[in-house]
Amino acid sequence: MGKGEQTRAQIIEHALELAKIVGLEGLSLGTLAESANLSKSGLFAHFKSKEALQLEVLETAVVLVTNEVIRPALAQPRGEARLRALFENYLRWIKGGASSGCIFTALSHEYDDRPGAVRDRLVKALKDLHNVFTRVAKAASDAGYLRPDLDAEQFAFDFIGLMKAYEYNFKLLADAKAEDKARTAFEALIYRNQPQNWPAIEKA
Amino acid sequence: MGKGEQTRAQIIEHALELAKIVGLEGLSLGTLAESANLSKSGLFAHFKSKEALQLEVLETAVVLVTNEVIRPALAQPRGEARLRALFENYLRWIKGGASSGCIFTALSHEYDDRPGAVRDRLVKALKDLHNVFTRVAKAASDAGYLRPDLDAEQFAFDFIGLMKAYEYNFKLLADAKAEDKARTAFEALIYRNQPQNWPAIEKA
Repeated sequence: MGKGEQTRAQIIEHALELAKIVGLEGLSLGTLAESANLSKSGLFAHFKSKEALQLEVLETAVVLVTNEVIRPALAQPRGEARLRALFENYLRWIKGGASSGCIFTALSHEYDDRPGAVRDRLVKALKDLHNVFTRVAKAASDAGYLRPDLDAEQFAFDFIGLMKAYEYNFKLLADAKAEDKARTAFEALIYRNQPQNWPAIEKA
Repeated sequence: MGKGEQTRAQIIEHALELAKIVGLEGLSLGTLAESANLSKSGLFAHFKSKEALQLEVLETAVVLVTNEVIRPALAQPRGEARLRALFENYLRWIKGGASSGCIFTALSHEYDDRPGAVRDRLVKALKDLHNVFTRVAKAASDAGYLRPDLDAEQFAFDFIGLMKAYEYNFKLLADAKAEDKARTAFEALIYRNQPQNWPAIEKA
């Protein structure tokens, strides 16, 4: 990496941590420039606009979640091992980092009513994540670990729900039992979708 | 209501709708003053500070969720009717309004890393809501609709998870089946917590 690339990477890394707290709209270019020992115009030599910087932060977050959550899970054999790895990696992703919490959760609520290029890229990333969850569930069904008639989309919905409840209980309610509850919910989700345990549920 | 009170109520109502989109920190006092045909100093005659206005918006949101979600549910007999009313009212709360989405979800992510009086009031409101969910579940157990050994805290966790997954699928992923999935998840939550359907689950 050349010096320019290093500076650029440092700016993005710092912006990513800040964005977890203040969002991507709330990023102050002045603060970012200062922390990289640059002038504002020096910062703009690296990123042509605030939106370009926001999009690069988002790309970096996608690479991170892929490397820390998705890829190591997909490296596991499909079925139980892959499902459990996905859960554990995602839990660690939410808990960990300099400031805890999932950057995608933070941005979800920042951009849900804010149209534009950042929202479009974010929604694409979230749909990709959702598809990974669905495919991992489908593979677990194909492998015989989950019921053969599994509704994999519903499984992904339920899985996202328990992870969101975890983040909410952990960060907002400061519930000491948040992780226990997430684990109980995950075990219940697995259990009720195993072929031996669960009769068909009528849709409401 | 006197004219002053009317103006004040209009400002808060408008601020509440805006806060769903831009958050409470993002509220522009200039925009609010303009929409109420006031000068900024006129606005400050009604609210001594931006924080005072933010706190009043939050109090108004608490009154609204109490009147639209909680109170009509608690008016139902405990057990199935009350549980289902809570779910339906909460679903409508998330879907409805001039701008869709739950103001508390929007604020949760704005304030999770932002200490202060607004966060403290928000967390108290969220804990109160959580306690309502827990109590409604406990009452359904006492009434014999849910299993006698129900973990009501876990039920509340699972319930919040499915509502959060609904809001996320509805608003961000624009999933046409979001409501169907939420209904399926709710039926599954009820089903597996009924005394006749569910063996004890070992904690992980």
